[in-house]
Formats: sequence, C-alpha cells, structure tokens
Amino acid sequence: MSLLVVGSVAFDAIETPFGKTDKIIGGAATYIALSSSYFTHKVNLVAVVGGDFPKADIMMLEAHNIDTQGLQIKENEKSFFWSGRYNNDMNSRDTLVTELNVLADFDPVIPEAYQDCDYLMLGNLAPKVQSTVIQRLKKRPKLVVMDTMNFWMDIAMNDLMETLAMVDVLSINDEEARQLSKEYSLVKAAKKILEMGPKVLIIKKGEHGALLFNKHQVFFAPALPLEEVFDPTGAGDTFAGGFIGYIASTNDISFENMKRALIYGSAQASFCVEKFGVERLVNLSQNELNDRVQEFVELVQFEINLKN
Amino acid sequence: MSLLVVGSVAFDAIETPFGKTDKIIGGAATYIALSSSYFTHKVNLVAVVGGDFPKADIMMLEAHNIDTQGLQIKENEKSFFWSGRYNNDMNSRDTLVTELNVLADFDPVIPEAYQDCDYLMLGNLAPKVQSTVIQRLKKRPKLVVMDTMNFWMDIAMNDLMETLAMVDVLSINDEEARQLSKEYSLVKAAKKILEMGPKVLIIKKGEHGALLFNKHQVFFAPALPLEEVFDPTGAGDTFAGGFIGYIASTNDISFENMKRALIYGSAQASFCVEKFGVERLVNLSQNELNDRVQEFVELVQFEINLKN
Repeated sequence: MSLLVVGSVAFDAIETPFGKTDKIIGGAATYIALSSSYFTHKVNLVAVVGGDFPKADIMMLEAHNIDTQGLQIKENEKSFFWSGRYNNDMNSRDTLVTELNVLADFDPVIPEAYQDCDYLMLGNLAPKVQSTVIQRLKKRPKLVVMDTMNFWMDIAMNDLMETLAMVDVLSINDEEARQLSKEYSLVKAAKKILEMGPKVLIIKKGEHGALLFNKHQVFFAPALPLEEVFDPTGAGDTFAGGFIGYIASTNDISFENMKRALIYGSAQASFCVEKFGVERLVNLSQNELNDRVQEFVELVQFEINLKN
Repeated sequence: MSLLVVGSVAFDAIETPFGKTDKIIGGAATYIALSSSYFTHKVNLVAVVGGDFPKADIMMLEAHNIDTQGLQIKENEKSFFWSGRYNNDMNSRDTLVTELNVLADFDPVIPEAYQDCDYLMLGNLAPKVQSTVIQRLKKRPKLVVMDTMNFWMDIAMNDLMETLAMVDVLSINDEEARQLSKEYSLVKAAKKILEMGPKVLIIKKGEHGALLFNKHQVFFAPALPLEEVFDPTGAGDTFAGGFIGYIASTNDISFENMKRALIYGSAQASFCVEKFGVERLVNLSQNELNDRVQEFVELVQFEINLKN
C-alpha cells in the first residue's frame, strides 16, 4: 500500500564522542522515508529543501523507491540546518545551531499523484503544517501517524491539540508524554493523551525501548542492547519509519500487527545508531533485517506454563 | 529444593511523596525470603537482629514457611536501621539515617540443619561476610546468587572481587554495573563482569526492566508499566527473591529457566512497589501472581514470521 511521508529534509552537522560530521543529509522525513522503504515500495515524499541541497542525495532517495515529485526545491533559499553535540552518555545533546531557512514558511503541496495514499506519516513539523496536510488530502488515509516534540508544546499548544484530534497514532518520547499530559507515570500519561484524539499512542524511551498503548492494551518493545551507540540522530524517526512502513506493507492496522510493526521499527532504529546519520540505513539487506528481528525475538521471548 | 537466604533483617523508615512510615520491617533478606516463599517452601534464613526486633515480625516470617533458626537475636543490641526519602520521580532517594548496629560485626553462623541447602542467595552485605557464608557450607550449593551495591565497590573492592570469583550469578543495577566494569555500555559492562567470576549477570534497570546475560546469550524482562509506584523500597530484593525462589522450586538452572525466573522476579517486584515496605508481599495469592505473570506475557509477546 502507498505511504505518504511529510516532514523535514535537511542538513545536519553532528558531534558525538566518536567524531564529527560536516553537513550531511538529515531531517525527519529523510529517516522515515528511508526506513519505510525497506518495507513498502510506494513511498511518496512531501518536503522542502533549498537550492543548496545536493542532487546526489535526492537520487539516493529515489534509488530507494522514494518518489520525490513532492519534494519542493527553492533554488534561491537554503535548506533547514541543525547542528548538535551529544554528551558522553549519548542520552542528552545540546543544539548548537538551528536555521529554519526554507522550513520557516513551508507550504506542504500534495501532488495529485499522491492523493490516493493509504497511509500517512507526519514527521515532526509545526502542528499547523501537519493539519494542513490532512486537510489537503481528498480521501482520508486508513491510518494517520504523527510525530511531534516538546518545542511545539511550548509555543503552539493550541495548534498541537487541534492536530492531535485529527490523527490515529501519536509517536512521542517519554519526556514529551509527561509534558503533554502533566503526568509523571507513563500509564497515566497514556490515558490522558488517548483522550486527546489518537486511538493509539507510542511512547519512545530511547535505549529503554518503546511502549504501545490503546485504551485497553499495552505492549512493550525493547531496544536492542548495543555494544556501541555511534550516533543516535534520527533513531526515533527511523523507528517511526519502520513502524509505518511495516503497517503499510501488511495493510493491517490491528493492535496485534502494530506490535510487530513496533519490533520492526525498533530493529531499524538499532541499525540507524550504528553509524553517523543515514549511512547505515542506506545499505541494509533483507537478511540483515531478518537477523536483527530474530535477535529481538530471542531477547524477549520466553515460555511460561502458569501453575494453577 | 531448599533455599538459604543470607542478608539483612532490619528496620526501615521510609518517606515517599505519598506518605511516610515509622520504623517498619525491612532488610534485603526479609524481602528476598518473603518473595521466594511464594515459590519454594523450604526457605532458610541466616541474619541478625537486636532485642528491639518485634516477635510478631519473626512470626510473620515463619508463617510464610521461612525457617528462622538461623536468625540470631542479640538481646542487648539494636537492629540495623535505615531511613530514606524518595524524590518526586521515585527514581532517586536520599539516605537520611544508616545505623549498622548488630550488622557491624555480623558473624553468619549456619545452623547444621541448613547445611544441605541446594540454592544460596546472598543478599547485599559486606563481601567478606558473603564469602564467609560460602566457605562455611560443607557442600557447595547448585547455584550461588549474590547481590551487592556501589558502597562495597567504594570501600571493599578487593573483598568484592574475591567474593565475585566464588558465585554463579551476580545481581546489580545498571549504575553499579557501570561502576564495577568502568564501561558505560551495559553490553560491554556485562562482558567484563562475566570475566570476574559469575557465569550469569543480572542487570536491574528499575522501571526499565532487567537484563540477563551469560557469555553467549542475552534476555530482557520488562518492568510492568504501573499507574503508581507507591514505595520502591525492596523492589530489587523482591525481584531477586522471585528469581531464586522460582529456580529453587523448579530445580533447573538452565538459561531458559532463568528467563522465566526473571519474569517471576519482575512480577514479584511489581507487587512490592504497590504498598509501603513488605505490606503487599505479605499477602499475595497464587491467582494474583498468575494474573500478574500473564500481564507480562501480554506485554512482550508477539508473533513474527520472518520474510525471506
């Protein structure tokens, strides 16, 4: 089934204890689209870049069967740029530079050929832009998944609440869930957030895995314990891309299938952090993915016959 | 199979955001023995208390089939006392009072009737006391599990290393694993620690679950997402008690069975935090435990047929 991915396509410059990069390709939609491309071969991209964005990177996306006719190129402007430095524990980072550039007045135009999309993944963007995308689709997709961040809770809470009411699945991290719900307990936070519109909530806990909630069920996917986390940039978006990509490929939005999607998303994220930026995501094989998913199975599966 | 539990039996005074207690029964061996008593009915206790320790609490332990002939009572001395205050996030706490009292010169005497024990759980104590217990057993148990803490890494590292070389399973938390190994990555930490003696390592991550490592395998047991954590005191010991109690009851020290034991330990810990001190542990039913374990099954089990 076809998947529409909307979000940032950008430049990142990253420093970790292992080294630093110059400007490399980044952005939520980049990670989401690349990650989902390993599951579904109809990935449509809506995003905006400046004239400084390399044609080679666009061709790399197209080589992954990502349709880029929805990628606006503003020749006389500059691409969104983010630069950050990770601390030694890799769990916290400082933002060094944020230049919105073309993203400041991003108008998400949906090409006619994308109008029949079955699945929609809204990467982190201004909530108003996210809701505009939903409004511009003539047919509502089977499932709308959105990601957001604390920044929008700080400066655009009303817009965020309006957008939340329009989506099916929200994906945020634990601190964001606490901020959005004003509850410390993630179980209580989930209950409150599921009253705001989404029928399903994903709470990402980084190296501690991810929780999937609906009103009656909860599922937990671990993160794979890794020897080395090289660069966490994009791991959350890669996770979301694996999640929605797997769902689009199976065309099954049941909670049972979302559990599997969460495991595939976690597997993709475990690849992402092995190298800088999208480097590891660009060259994955089906065998590598299968082996990684098998590691997740072995990590958490057990057999218990309950005594009565 | 019979289980010998050695550790502190003590008084705690606890403050959490939900309230505070006077002196109530606490201590590592108390939590371990109570928790394990739901699995195996031959729990033998070696510990020391002062004359101030209530007979009613000893009778409560005996009512759980815990043999207390190894519980030394020093009539003219005072029991070990710890007092602490949890912060609002319940993940960190400040120690307000530590009075070693009878624990300062604890000589772990093993009653003759305990000499045939099949399993040994060494709760957190001075490493020298822990190794003394192993030396005083005429027959080596099938499995020796030990818990310890950062305090002993700070002041008795040589003793700790000697004791580590004598045990089969070490149970510590993530920060302790990092301190002991000088590695931030828990996978790297586990590799180093498994060179120190233990064949199996459990790394407890509190609300983020627990990892089980041997040299070739890793298993992850989640913590149950809870609406409310009322009092985390003793959760790690309760976890260890469920772990060793389940292994003793099944008399199976395979890695596969340890996975199940980790789930049972996690289930027991999830009860422990629901009330102050041992209150919830004192009155558990087999049905409650089965239902809780079923929640763990539903929390992490998924079915994936890998594509080739």
